[in-house]
Amino acid sequence: MKDFVIIGNKAVNGGKISLNDLPGSAGRMDVLCRCVTSALFISFGMRRDINVWLILKGEPGPDKIVRFNGETMRSLNPDERSSGSLIQKALLIDASEIEKQSTPGVFVRYGNLAQLLNEFSEEKRPLFYLKEDGDDVTEMIQTESAALLENGVYILGDNQGVFEDDEKMIENADALKISVGPISLLSSQCITLILNVLDRATNK
Amino acid sequence: MKDFVIIGNKAVNGGKISLNDLPGSAGRMDVLCRCVTSALFISFGMRRDINVWLILKGEPGPDKIVRFNGETMRSLNPDERSSGSLIQKALLIDASEIEKQSTPGVFVRYGNLAQLLNEFSEEKRPLFYLKEDGDDVTEMIQTESAALLENGVYILGDNQGVFEDDEKMIENADALKISVGPISLLSSQCITLILNVLDRATNK
Repeated sequence: MKDFVIIGNKAVNGGKISLNDLPGSAGRMDVLCRCVTSALFISFGMRRDINVWLILKGEPGPDKIVRFNGETMRSLNPDERSSGSLIQKALLIDASEIEKQSTPGVFVRYGNLAQLLNEFSEEKRPLFYLKEDGDDVTEMIQTESAALLENGVYILGDNQGVFEDDEKMIENADALKISVGPISLLSSQCITLILNVLDRATNK
Repeated sequence: MKDFVIIGNKAVNGGKISLNDLPGSAGRMDVLCRCVTSALFISFGMRRDINVWLILKGEPGPDKIVRFNGETMRSLNPDERSSGSLIQKALLIDASEIEKQSTPGVFVRYGNLAQLLNEFSEEKRPLFYLKEDGDDVTEMIQTESAALLENGVYILGDNQGVFEDDEKMIENADALKISVGPISLLSSQCITLILNVLDRATNK
């Protein structure tokens, strides 16, 4: 199992988001939608061993977590509007602290980064934090870290990156900083690159 | 300079496309929009040394070519609707065999794959064709092919791949088959992976 956690700093967490304006009124929800596509889609199918956790930290609050589960996912296409539509539906149901399924494979609850990090730590999952000055994942996969990467939880910021308080939390959770190359890229592009490194290791 | 050519087998080439239905009525235009984003965007800016050539082979015909030029591009955001909107505008101007600029950095003309291949061949540009059984680009970059890759024209299919007649044309133009890993991926993901290999080689 691999998990991708994307922090949506301004992503709206209530009300009916507009599918015609995912970047604007929905708080750069387009960034999160692209991450869903990168993480779950391959050419002729879906990666079933992946969860994508979107942390929606925008208005009106409190934070919600929307989870896309590859194993049970249905009715998802690779275009941004498709994942956006499933997020829209998730935000329209009555949320609670307990995760509820809004559509097949999509789950929603009230929750924040701190809770999610705690849960992964309790499960003893290895945490990785995408950061420009991190260790290069193509080199790490050649080392004893390979098994950790295969079972990793990967934490990424959105277009605004990760704010200081969240970063401290991630570092306190003992996440290992990793990078995917010499240039700072879109979050969705980073996901594609991580998965390619893992694909190559698995299919050697 | 690097060029990406994406063949949109069903992509609509006339009339006003619907930005609310890029996958459906616009003939999987979403695939091409994602390719534009992968090729041109990095985290804080745009790749200025890249052209993206979209070959629109769908209805009503004849084929058109829409070119996104990184160097002169303006008013483009990474979401699919943004590139879709610029394609929409390109399809609304009176096209001819001579390329015209529809919005800053976006150009349109009547044209097809055969013509484009001829033009690149006349310029003696090295052609690469993305195909699952091609040579692995991460290995090629270690060889004398590195300089060719840096100046490459990369040809990709869309969700339907490349049909037989187009593939013959590409092979006759002496394109070298390359691949990006063990799993068949979305065209946009392949572009991200190629550029990462080139970024790593340039910034070694």
